[in-house]
Amino acid sequence: MRFCDIIDKKKLGEELSYDELYFAVNGFLEGTVPDYQMSALLMAICFMGMTDREIADLTMITAKSGQTLDLSRFGTRSVDKHSTGGVGDKTTLIVAPIVAAAGGVVAKMSGRGLGHTGGTVDKLESIPGYRVDLTTEEFFEISEKTGLSVISANKDLAPADKKLYALRDVTSTVNSIPLIVASIMGKKLSAGCHNIVLDVKYGSGAFMKTPEDAEILGQKMVDIGKACKKNIRAVITDMDVPLGRTIGNLSEVQEAYSLLGGHDEGLEDLKTVCLTLSANMLSLVHGISVKSAYTMAENALVSGKALEKFKEMVMAHSGSISKLEELLSNYSTVVETTNVISPKDGYISALDAEALGITALNLGAGRLTKDTKIDYLAGITLVKKPGDFVKKGDLIAKLYSTQKTKLIGAEDAFMKAVSFSEKPINLRNIIYKTLS
Amino acid sequence: MRFCDIIDKKKLGEELSYDELYFAVNGFLEGTVPDYQMSALLMAICFMGMTDREIADLTMITAKSGQTLDLSRFGTRSVDKHSTGGVGDKTTLIVAPIVAAAGGVVAKMSGRGLGHTGGTVDKLESIPGYRVDLTTEEFFEISEKTGLSVISANKDLAPADKKLYALRDVTSTVNSIPLIVASIMGKKLSAGCHNIVLDVKYGSGAFMKTPEDAEILGQKMVDIGKACKKNIRAVITDMDVPLGRTIGNLSEVQEAYSLLGGHDEGLEDLKTVCLTLSANMLSLVHGISVKSAYTMAENALVSGKALEKFKEMVMAHSGSISKLEELLSNYSTVVETTNVISPKDGYISALDAEALGITALNLGAGRLTKDTKIDYLAGITLVKKPGDFVKKGDLIAKLYSTQKTKLIGAEDAFMKAVSFSEKPINLRNIIYKTLS
Repeated sequence: MRFCDIIDKKKLGEELSYDELYFAVNGFLEGTVPDYQMSALLMAICFMGMTDREIADLTMITAKSGQTLDLSRFGTRSVDKHSTGGVGDKTTLIVAPIVAAAGGVVAKMSGRGLGHTGGTVDKLESIPGYRVDLTTEEFFEISEKTGLSVISANKDLAPADKKLYALRDVTSTVNSIPLIVASIMGKKLSAGCHNIVLDVKYGSGAFMKTPEDAEILGQKMVDIGKACKKNIRAVITDMDVPLGRTIGNLSEVQEAYSLLGGHDEGLEDLKTVCLTLSANMLSLVHGISVKSAYTMAENALVSGKALEKFKEMVMAHSGSISKLEELLSNYSTVVETTNVISPKDGYISALDAEALGITALNLGAGRLTKDTKIDYLAGITLVKKPGDFVKKGDLIAKLYSTQKTKLIGAEDAFMKAVSFSEKPINLRNIIYKTLS
Repeated sequence: MRFCDIIDKKKLGEELSYDELYFAVNGFLEGTVPDYQMSALLMAICFMGMTDREIADLTMITAKSGQTLDLSRFGTRSVDKHSTGGVGDKTTLIVAPIVAAAGGVVAKMSGRGLGHTGGTVDKLESIPGYRVDLTTEEFFEISEKTGLSVISANKDLAPADKKLYALRDVTSTVNSIPLIVASIMGKKLSAGCHNIVLDVKYGSGAFMKTPEDAEILGQKMVDIGKACKKNIRAVITDMDVPLGRTIGNLSEVQEAYSLLGGHDEGLEDLKTVCLTLSANMLSLVHGISVKSAYTMAENALVSGKALEKFKEMVMAHSGSISKLEELLSNYSTVVETTNVISPKDGYISALDAEALGITALNLGAGRLTKDTKIDYLAGITLVKKPGDFVKKGDLIAKLYSTQKTKLIGAEDAFMKAVSFSEKPINLRNIIYKTLS
């Protein structure tokens, strides 16, 4: 098999066979297919797409490219949630404890931040002592005891996806539905969960810019999951505006901790997304209606059981709740702050999620290169959100960084993400649709 | 400038600026743009094309990526010929002596074989003693004395094209009109000739499969050449069938030597192409009509002056005419031969040029990898050509190689390239059009 012929076939829009895809992915993983040939194939896929058969094959080849996790010990109770990536997306920190408190097992491997989107593992690492690098044995032990463990992705699971993603990231080939589907579902299948709920985001801060594109992506993932005998649903949610009121690492942990503690003022969007995702997960776990599962999730939240589960998880991963609480209360005194002030009267009509994600990244909350050390205290608090009326001189947001120099120009960058309107704004429903 | 943004822009079909193209080409040449990013850009160009402005910029950036040759000492007499690549294409060996014998200066740098197409430099190297690697001083000296020097391309001319072509060759991005135009014209402009005639081939053995595509390619090259103040024409010629009756290296030298010596039986196609190209070259050199120039070219051929010029060139490059003649007369005794016999009665309707190019390559006449040593004696003689009637058992072709094992299966490979018809065949005109 000559790799050039495979590239040529796809360039002409033809369907690649399982053997050709296997040769491509495993050859690339082993180094016999050089990256410059793989990037040419990826670009051809961006233009010519893939058939459902090709996507299913690429997904399975990705899933089986390394080790796979066996969660069969948890029977039908194991449930995973995956977000396609957003700004201010701290849902895992809230959803996982809710679901575990209501009888699901969330034995989950999460990723680090990518570009302008944050990663759950980075957020967890901002909790003093929290270990994200447990052995598989420790991971299983905690999952069995508490129903809840979130650690960083095992590098031996779906290694082809890691290598492919790194190449896609630098060759402008990320934004292709077949490649996104195979990447996400390949990872999910290798992680061995019985039930899967996908949070497919659309809008300025997401890969998919429109709800229609997000629906196409979501439905393809659901179809692939079902073909692989998984219980699976996808929830299409809005990511035009950052979720909740914080962007960063410790600040997002603070917001999650606060919501779990019952403080939901101004966090209606975040709460709705978290309860909807939790309800879909619990519906699959218990085989009940989403409506009943929603009530179950609400009870777990309101009763404080989800908060207890969160604390249990932190401690099981060697984290310290008392040190976390101390850090959260001292936060504002150890960090440099800039206030973003409104230059005029009006309704805030948009807060561009991608632009704010990049602003937070430049404050230190994310990685400019693979080796950047994250500033866990850096980030943004949104005092006002779309729909709010502001007067000239009102506080719109607060920007944080431990490095004063990083705040230079940050207010201007923030303001570029803000749009105003003279008239009141109709807000979109944060949940667009659920696919199953 | 982030290279990813450049890829993205082209992927969206937008026009790249001069600065962006300069950054891409020179960054790639210097190694700051990695090959996996360049191959993604090249594939995006294959799909989205380039505007005329982009092609002109890319051509100039390629031409100026290294040294340029200054042929101004030859005034308006210097003339170059470039073929887009064919099978059995020994025209340079015939055209260059004709034009030099009729007052042009052909100071030419040629390439080696690529894939199934042969290269003039490989053919010249099959002549005992012929040196293709002269210094620029020696090259100029011979050109001044004899009006004719053909050597291998200086690696310092248009180095960006060499590096880009090597990458295109292994990433299925060769077949893109904008990239072909910039590659050919970039090289031609760096080689400094005052007059240029392009032989743009179409058909099974050429990059362009239809005359219409060849015309688009040819016209774009002519336009770019004119924009750069060159006298330029393009002749669109048929490459569905190998040109002449030989494919290989020494065998093509033999055919050229034979035609220059006045033996033109069965070589009507080759002679027509050579005289048409020579006429266009001489028309530009002398500022006369193509018709007058055609007569001038015919005279140079018939009078034997072109043959004398060929011998002069060989000797000036340290080649030996007596050893060449000895080799040509002993040819059939030192080489292994297989006769291809017709399995039935009928008219030969097609001889697929690409398939025969590959058959010759597998016999040893070309390179399977960059480092393959060429078997100069290997090749094919076509006893019959399309239009000829054959009876079952008639000899269609002879296959040669110095390695007997390479002849195994070669007859079958040859026969796959042959089509038969029960009825007589109308042959196409070998010259489709001339563009200026």
